[in-house]
Amino acid sequence: MARIGKLVVVGVGLIGGSFALALKEAGAVGRVTGVGRGGRNIRRALELKIIDAAGAFDRATFADADLALLAVPVGQMRVVMRAIAPLIGAKTVVTDAGSTKEDVIALARRELKGGLARFVPGHPIAGTEKSGAESAFAGLYRGRRVVLTPLAGTEPRALALVRSAWRRCGASVSELQAREHDRVLAAVSHLPHVLAYALVDQVARAKNAKQLFSFAAGGFRDFTRIAASHPEMWRDICLANRRALLAELARYGGELQRVRKMLERGDARALHALFSGARGARDRWLKDAQ
Amino acid sequence: MARIGKLVVVGVGLIGGSFALALKEAGAVGRVTGVGRGGRNIRRALELKIIDAAGAFDRATFADADLALLAVPVGQMRVVMRAIAPLIGAKTVVTDAGSTKEDVIALARRELKGGLARFVPGHPIAGTEKSGAESAFAGLYRGRRVVLTPLAGTEPRALALVRSAWRRCGASVSELQAREHDRVLAAVSHLPHVLAYALVDQVARAKNAKQLFSFAAGGFRDFTRIAASHPEMWRDICLANRRALLAELARYGGELQRVRKMLERGDARALHALFSGARGARDRWLKDAQ
Repeated sequence: MARIGKLVVVGVGLIGGSFALALKEAGAVGRVTGVGRGGRNIRRALELKIIDAAGAFDRATFADADLALLAVPVGQMRVVMRAIAPLIGAKTVVTDAGSTKEDVIALARRELKGGLARFVPGHPIAGTEKSGAESAFAGLYRGRRVVLTPLAGTEPRALALVRSAWRRCGASVSELQAREHDRVLAAVSHLPHVLAYALVDQVARAKNAKQLFSFAAGGFRDFTRIAASHPEMWRDICLANRRALLAELARYGGELQRVRKMLERGDARALHALFSGARGARDRWLKDAQ
Repeated sequence: MARIGKLVVVGVGLIGGSFALALKEAGAVGRVTGVGRGGRNIRRALELKIIDAAGAFDRATFADADLALLAVPVGQMRVVMRAIAPLIGAKTVVTDAGSTKEDVIALARRELKGGLARFVPGHPIAGTEKSGAESAFAGLYRGRRVVLTPLAGTEPRALALVRSAWRRCGASVSELQAREHDRVLAAVSHLPHVLAYALVDQVARAKNAKQLFSFAAGGFRDFTRIAASHPEMWRDICLANRRALLAELARYGGELQRVRKMLERGDARALHALFSGARGARDRWLKDAQ
């Protein structure tokens, strides 16, 4: 691939910072400039050598960039795109790491103007419940999937650059239509996050919350691990993808209704079939994923 | 404590096997006899020195036992209790490791006859998604909670023996009313298990299940870890505690309804409050639990 001479990362958190570190480790990038709203986080990113310089929303930062990664919560995407549209150079490729794609594409169509053909919508399916530059590490994307959802008019060169950058991070890259991406992620990521947040909320709002938590164990901890995720990021994701998420929530409501009826009629056979079927499906998934 | 000369473990799986190993490691038990329906599992337990002898439902096994732990799925409890009632000695203390307590107590009242006063209902809140003697290990109960739900007529000596045995396993022992125990566990254990099984089932039954699983990542894996639990055991637990579980399911349905309305009206503030409140409550719980 064409080595990336200058990379600009907007939002040097877990996702943006790990992208920079992975490309550095692979020797695939020259200079990395970080842009962010939190002065302390950017200073920490400099100390940790995740970025080489702190930039700003100005021409000096963006005009000579080969690639700019927008790794900000989906709710900040519009402001960021509007800010960079007049600043990026004629060759600057822009990509994002947003967890939803239809809404990001809609924003890009409105805000990126001439830069739209060099915009490659992307979503690295990786992360931990941690956030901030402190949490970034070079291995985050190794063996993980990255989905790109290019537009009909996306320049092949731009798509190739972004695909190759993610591959250099160790990721496996695939392409989907944006709408399909959003539906799939609603089912296997956005719904579980909402379910985990909702369960913790239910326990926390109970009159005997303290007692309940005192008897919660490892199963509860793992089930709710994703409820430790960044609330602002997940608020934005849920709102951005709310159509698909509401459809999945409705399906899940139906699923729980089925379970309720099995319990009400004491249907041991049906419960066992559901539980063992689910265990089997999960086992096969984990086996296939290896 | 009085050292346990002879311990009988009925059901030498993760729970029963780990109890035997922990007591052996602590030097708190003389001889351990295992009883189980799976011949292969019992042979493996002998090989692994979890038990010293394989017993059966006969007087030779039970009459001189100081303590018998019933560590079988709740659904098998009746048969086991009925079998041992005429076999146990005048000093044999019986305890169980069932995840639900009201139903086990009801069975004991019917089946244990003269042994009832020496029956101490118990529930070690520990476990992994694994099962069988192979998965047993001495450290399973270290730092974990064990709840005992004694009856009004439980002999103090029997209660003291069981409490002290669990303490020797490294557990922290507390007492609750059986009904309260079942309600608490429905909220923090049984409900999450049902939710995890239901989510995997929903994904597995989708037309594009293969595609969905292919994009599932670490969050999905942790959220559904408990869906790898023993289906028979969880079927029994859910049926045994279905009244409390149905109440929790109904509350959770209301909780999801609240989230749905927030999404429908695009209420960013309410979603953020719910997500960050849940994250905060979970963080405090983990901190307190250390």
